[in-house]
Amino acid sequence: MAIEIMAVGGYSEVGRNMTAIKVDDEVIICDMGVHLENYISLTEDEDLVNIHPDELIAHNACPNIELLGEWKEKVKAIIPTHAHLDHIGAIPFLARSFECPIICTPFTAALLNSLITDAKIPFKNKIKVLNVNSSIKISNSLTMEFVSITHSTPQTVVAVLHTPYGKIVYANDFKLDNYPVLGTKPNLARLEEIGNEGDVVCLVMDSLYAHEARKMPSESVARAMLKDVLLGTYCEGKAVICTTFSSHIARLKSMVDYGKRMGRKVIFLGRSLHKYIAAAESVGLVKFSEQAEIVKYSSKVKSRLNKMMREGIDKYLIICTGHQGEPQAGLYKMAHGMFDFKRGDHVVFSSSVIPSPTNQRNRHVIEEKLTSLGVRIFKDIHVSGHAAREDHRDMIEMLKPKHIVPSHSEPDRMAALADLAYDLGYHERFIHLLKNGSILKFNGA
Amino acid sequence: MAIEIMAVGGYSEVGRNMTAIKVDDEVIICDMGVHLENYISLTEDEDLVNIHPDELIAHNACPNIELLGEWKEKVKAIIPTHAHLDHIGAIPFLARSFECPIICTPFTAALLNSLITDAKIPFKNKIKVLNVNSSIKISNSLTMEFVSITHSTPQTVVAVLHTPYGKIVYANDFKLDNYPVLGTKPNLARLEEIGNEGDVVCLVMDSLYAHEARKMPSESVARAMLKDVLLGTYCEGKAVICTTFSSHIARLKSMVDYGKRMGRKVIFLGRSLHKYIAAAESVGLVKFSEQAEIVKYSSKVKSRLNKMMREGIDKYLIICTGHQGEPQAGLYKMAHGMFDFKRGDHVVFSSSVIPSPTNQRNRHVIEEKLTSLGVRIFKDIHVSGHAAREDHRDMIEMLKPKHIVPSHSEPDRMAALADLAYDLGYHERFIHLLKNGSILKFNGA
Amino acid sequence: MAIEIMAVGGYSEVGRNMTAIKVDDEVIICDMGVHLENYISLTEDEDLVNIHPDELIAHNACPNIELLGEWKEKVKAIIPTHAHLDHIGAIPFLARSFECPIICTPFTAALLNSLITDAKIPFKNKIKVLNVNSSIKISNSLTMEFVSITHSTPQTVVAVLHTPYGKIVYANDFKLDNYPVLGTKPNLARLEEIGNEGDVVCLVMDSLYAHEARKMPSESVARAMLKDVLLGTYCEGKAVICTTFSSHIARLKSMVDYGKRMGRKVIFLGRSLHKYIAAAESVGLVKFSEQAEIVKYSSKVKSRLNKMMREGIDKYLIICTGHQGEPQAGLYKMAHGMFDFKRGDHVVFSSSVIPSPTNQRNRHVIEEKLTSLGVRIFKDIHVSGHAAREDHRDMIEMLKPKHIVPSHSEPDRMAALADLAYDLGYHERFIHLLKNGSILKFNGA
Amino acid sequence: MAIEIMAVGGYSEVGRNMTAIKVDDEVIICDMGVHLENYISLTEDEDLVNIHPDELIAHNACPNIELLGEWKEKVKAIIPTHAHLDHIGAIPFLARSFECPIICTPFTAALLNSLITDAKIPFKNKIKVLNVNSSIKISNSLTMEFVSITHSTPQTVVAVLHTPYGKIVYANDFKLDNYPVLGTKPNLARLEEIGNEGDVVCLVMDSLYAHEARKMPSESVARAMLKDVLLGTYCEGKAVICTTFSSHIARLKSMVDYGKRMGRKVIFLGRSLHKYIAAAESVGLVKFSEQAEIVKYSSKVKSRLNKMMREGIDKYLIICTGHQGEPQAGLYKMAHGMFDFKRGDHVVFSSSVIPSPTNQRNRHVIEEKLTSLGVRIFKDIHVSGHAAREDHRDMIEMLKPKHIVPSHSEPDRMAALADLAYDLGYHERFIHLLKNGSILKFNGA
Repeated sequence: MAIEIMAVGGYSEVGRNMTAIKVDDEVIICDMGVHLENYISLTEDEDLVNIHPDELIAHNACPNIELLGEWKEKVKAIIPTHAHLDHIGAIPFLARSFECPIICTPFTAALLNSLITDAKIPFKNKIKVLNVNSSIKISNSLTMEFVSITHSTPQTVVAVLHTPYGKIVYANDFKLDNYPVLGTKPNLARLEEIGNEGDVVCLVMDSLYAHEARKMPSESVARAMLKDVLLGTYCEGKAVICTTFSSHIARLKSMVDYGKRMGRKVIFLGRSLHKYIAAAESVGLVKFSEQAEIVKYSSKVKSRLNKMMREGIDKYLIICTGHQGEPQAGLYKMAHGMFDFKRGDHVVFSSSVIPSPTNQRNRHVIEEKLTSLGVRIFKDIHVSGHAAREDHRDMIEMLKPKHIVPSHSEPDRMAALADLAYDLGYHERFIHLLKNGSILKFNGA
Repeated sequence: MAIEIMAVGGYSEVGRNMTAIKVDDEVIICDMGVHLENYISLTEDEDLVNIHPDELIAHNACPNIELLGEWKEKVKAIIPTHAHLDHIGAIPFLARSFECPIICTPFTAALLNSLITDAKIPFKNKIKVLNVNSSIKISNSLTMEFVSITHSTPQTVVAVLHTPYGKIVYANDFKLDNYPVLGTKPNLARLEEIGNEGDVVCLVMDSLYAHEARKMPSESVARAMLKDVLLGTYCEGKAVICTTFSSHIARLKSMVDYGKRMGRKVIFLGRSLHKYIAAAESVGLVKFSEQAEIVKYSSKVKSRLNKMMREGIDKYLIICTGHQGEPQAGLYKMAHGMFDFKRGDHVVFSSSVIPSPTNQRNRHVIEEKLTSLGVRIFKDIHVSGHAAREDHRDMIEMLKPKHIVPSHSEPDRMAALADLAYDLGYHERFIHLLKNGSILKFNGA
Repeated sequence: MAIEIMAVGGYSEVGRNMTAIKVDDEVIICDMGVHLENYISLTEDEDLVNIHPDELIAHNACPNIELLGEWKEKVKAIIPTHAHLDHIGAIPFLARSFECPIICTPFTAALLNSLITDAKIPFKNKIKVLNVNSSIKISNSLTMEFVSITHSTPQTVVAVLHTPYGKIVYANDFKLDNYPVLGTKPNLARLEEIGNEGDVVCLVMDSLYAHEARKMPSESVARAMLKDVLLGTYCEGKAVICTTFSSHIARLKSMVDYGKRMGRKVIFLGRSLHKYIAAAESVGLVKFSEQAEIVKYSSKVKSRLNKMMREGIDKYLIICTGHQGEPQAGLYKMAHGMFDFKRGDHVVFSSSVIPSPTNQRNRHVIEEKLTSLGVRIFKDIHVSGHAAREDHRDMIEMLKPKHIVPSHSEPDRMAALADLAYDLGYHERFIHLLKNGSILKFNGA
Repeated sequence: MAIEIMAVGGYSEVGRNMTAIKVDDEVIICDMGVHLENYISLTEDEDLVNIHPDELIAHNACPNIELLGEWKEKVKAIIPTHAHLDHIGAIPFLARSFECPIICTPFTAALLNSLITDAKIPFKNKIKVLNVNSSIKISNSLTMEFVSITHSTPQTVVAVLHTPYGKIVYANDFKLDNYPVLGTKPNLARLEEIGNEGDVVCLVMDSLYAHEARKMPSESVARAMLKDVLLGTYCEGKAVICTTFSSHIARLKSMVDYGKRMGRKVIFLGRSLHKYIAAAESVGLVKFSEQAEIVKYSSKVKSRLNKMMREGIDKYLIICTGHQGEPQAGLYKMAHGMFDFKRGDHVVFSSSVIPSPTNQRNRHVIEEKLTSLGVRIFKDIHVSGHAAREDHRDMIEMLKPKHIVPSHSEPDRMAALADLAYDLGYHERFIHLLKNGSILKFNGA
């Protein structure tokens, strides 16, 4: 047998996910993301078009594709599993190094096209759309199957690579949510069936919350939290401003729904929200443009805010970017002059603080600023999209992989998933804690 | 003017709440609870009847009523605001030192009667029932009003003492939940009205989560979490065991509801659950005995469990005590031999770990034990019943008290509430961080 | 009696310390510092001379002297108690608003002169030098006494204001170190004597580590740690680079001493270190310029580093700035191109991370960078200069103040000191948790 | 080649260390310790003689020697590397299952003999003494070499097993301390020589503090901290009580030294301290019985304390057990009635809190108790005996092992050491995170 897996990015770190799977003489790449923190610190002052991929790699903002060496010529497909930047963000910069198509779900494709347009970089790879719960033949030997799974952005998939020697399952970012607010449920039946076929050689799996003894709560719990904060607090005469991930269409949907129940007009501010909403609408997931107003151009946000203030700010529910306190995002700009905050205005952070020192600092700064303006802050109106220990357990028990590779986190969390695998009876030889550059060979497995 | 407030218990500590309010020559006592950790460590091996109140006081298990000195003779009423042991638990031991009635809501009264019966100590004080959103004249000068509020046990009230010199508001344990699962909503209209009357001299207020920048989520969020765990995970053939606070009738209701949706028979195990359920049924809050089975006697739990195991454990949803890992409680006993746990059985902790070193240790021990048995653990399926910063802010803005006394926590949390009061424009002279034994005089206020 | 204390800066925050004491019709100001984080974020790109004091105040970088109102005209002296920027840094900008002299110890004066020169702002106030353990008459009614105390910079004093109504003791930044590496011991005899005189009306005291149950370790402990790291590790052929606070002359002395024991030439890099060393030498505290080389101009650092690399980097012990990872400091620049780090080079952080989100982020970035270069990091080779609980206890028991005002920290730490005061028998009326702008009146005290 | 390593105890947990090394047909056991927390909770109420080894194993208090299977018959030697109970404590119970000698340093042997006597269990294995920096031939193929290393008890060794196929190095508990207060320095020259011989197949290494970026400070730093607390605080008329690990002879020596400098008589209280001191004296390490008084029998402690109180408690420096707040230890008993604590008495905890929930709870209880008695607490007067990241790096670079096995901790810390190994260029195949029961085979290595 001749399957090899190379950890290219996102191993022993959070960000710039990329994994290469070599089967005989063919290579498949799963995900090709940016490291958000490094990427943002690099691109703040520059047009993307001016940044050479080597520079992105040098600053650990993109996966280091030089690690691929001779594999580079053999790549047959790039498979981004969902539309988050740490999984697709490097494609505009790096994909042209590979002579192969990109295969992804419709929402991911729509978003990717929009990124490519933004990047203003020539792009030649073909983007093939594959629906959830469908398969595509990549070569004579290899077939890619997309199994529907839940995460914090729509149309996320578990990528199952069928090879002559068995299956490789790549489940990098998921949770098992049987009460999703938007989109299809996890296809547990198919996952069990795959496990029962008995030939899963290796499972690569997001381990970010493997240390938490629970299942990750459903998005419907976040919806209940939002309802409580939006409908269950007194906000007459006050601004109510929500901020969350632009890619989190389900969360945005809850905001739109409750905004209407509040009797307020919902208004989305800024380019990033527009981009994701447009992608979601283009594939028929939502119809926000019928239910709400979307201010697409950043340059028009200020005048629209002024108009709202004149009309009565309590006629609106504002949704903006900036939940991590990013200095270039909407909320930051509003707090630093673009909006006239009044004592008692509400700001709802429908996200946690992604635990990097930069985010922690930026959130501290924005919260201090808002507090000094007398704003009421509602934090952590959120549940994560990443699996916790009991989701991992279910996944392993359904798929029955021979080998397990924890991904998408620092060594301590990867070790927590390894520990669960031990508990489930795995031997050390079949659990692999990798670092970028590691190659795993399944010899005679 | 001549109002004085004495911090008797629960100031700069969590537990044994008791506050005395002196108006001219009359004293009202709000709450008379035990310090659970100290109380349990003292009573483990002893019949309650053998414990002299002085011993309870010496071990800081009860409020030190000797601090009252001459006030002791002047007590006109004892007002337990809700049925938690840290608010009513010392009444069976200490109330007889006072020649006065106890005034509380029907559920609190039912529970108190049950505690008194258990304690097997002669009890002479009269228990008067006062409904939520009602008032009672205590003396010519003093009237007690109960305003409905939400917390993690039914019929909790904000106690408003009307005096000739203004009102004292005692809101020790509450959150503002507009989507409660059981019982009435907070009576915000009356709280605002009281504030508008403009004569609130002092607000004593639970500060446990004053450092958290949010409103405390509604009980409906905990209900959504429970639904997700009970209905959204695969548990065919497995035991499913839930544990929570016996006094948390709303949470128990959600468990009963979802147990039925799972097609399982709900069964409550043990005396403590029976006691609270009986109290709740006696006042018409729930009808669990029609919807579920209640095993009242601890001595019968083992045989009932055996019977369930014979009949098929997956026909049942078991609800038991022991969410803090207490060695004397149901879950601990089940894990140590009373129940034959199988790999893959579910245990749902519908509580957080109350952060005392004893609880942390006990929970660690029970989780290790359950994990070693292959049990799946679902932690923190819970929201707190205590106010967070935005609840506090609403309370202060509604009531507009002249003075603020943070209660029910360690100094750091009391300081967090003081800090909020500063932000709202209060001067240091009107914010009081007390310790047990402190007396506050409102001279010429 | 007519003493009032106004909290101007550094209350419920860490930074921009300033306290005003009014006695009848005369005002004394203790400390006038910057808030380092806010100050740096404001001044990064600007010449100091271009920044108007109002802007510094608007960004919370300086104490808000507008709070003083009518007191402003009555200020008789400004008393910086030591040479840290959060205690003296605002003097160049704000002192000119007051018609009064500045009184401080020789080292503080030397440093202040150097700050004034740097700021290039016209300065008119007279700087009077007062030695430790000496007094000066400020007016007919007021005398200022400097009692020697230990801290992390030389010639720190407890400022004792003698008034007709008793004494105000201002001990904002100190620890009790009986084994200092440099300078005089705390004058405990005088502190006890002051306490025995029985007329201390109020003690204002640094509460930063009041929650830690110990005395803060002596600087001699940090010296032992440095010895262990510098002499007890193998570093042949490797660079050894130490970084600490420029103002921490005692720590620098230990580095110089051990550098010589290592047989390496000690070299100080950069303006900030030069500034503090020059101040220390000017008052006879050390003679580093005879024992080490000091590269004064930032512009010459690079060429000097190049020369060291040519001569053999292991002939040197390098001391530079940048222990908090500040992007404008020496270590950061060295790690980003100015120095050619080799695998196995040593970097010794002789400081803790000052716990602000900005520092935590900057330290994270520099540590990641150094680690990626293969550098060995030695962290936390440090003890703090701030009192812990047992130092506070000694201070209170020696001075026996009537009132206590915790200063120099967030509310939780202030509350920890309040809690200690309670334990020592103080009543709530005599413990005051202030916020900037609070005024405390000792009426009839 | 035919070397196998079995993780028997102490892998993915802290405690009951035991590792078996099989070379062809011969097995060597390194360490055979108890899991202190589980051991104590089991033996509290029982005579050791009554506890069957199976019961100790069933409660995870001892290593599970049943995992050895057929290896059991092949054991040629048991090698406890130092005198801590988590490394030797199970020998009295389990060694008789093996037909082989025990080989250890003189101090370890002395202590082991004393444990055997205490256990009152028949014991048949021969105890052979091997000095540090010496070797012994175990069989025709195997030689054991003891290399001197530093730790928190005397005569700790790195065990180097010489086999026909290379060396296995077992360094389970060490730090690199070039300024030890007692005993020999680490034999770095020999460790480097072993590395240069180029045949270290595997290094098993304590990873407890692999996540801390520094070298662990020398014991001389703890000595400086003790000096500061004992000589640098005012304690006239007050009791001064120190507590630390009974096995930490170097720490005890510092206490004896400073006790004399204080002009106080040093007195050791209790059996445990006597046991370790007797062992240390029997091998010539110290002469405490000439410098101090040792109260050997627990039964005499109370009367001796009474005598001290009569004579003047400030004539003594008391050293007792109980630094973790253990309810059966000296300090706990003193605080609960055996000693008449006065306000202002000093208690010095010369240890950290070993981070298990039981210790945290016990320490919380004793600190609350002491604080309520007005006692002054000095915490964390301590440095650890375990390596930090820079010690690990030195060890790996000196020994140049082919394989690395992190030991002695939870998965997260093991992963931190694995991460360091990655940084040093190791491939995933050569780094092994084991769990009890794992077997590692070096096939064709």
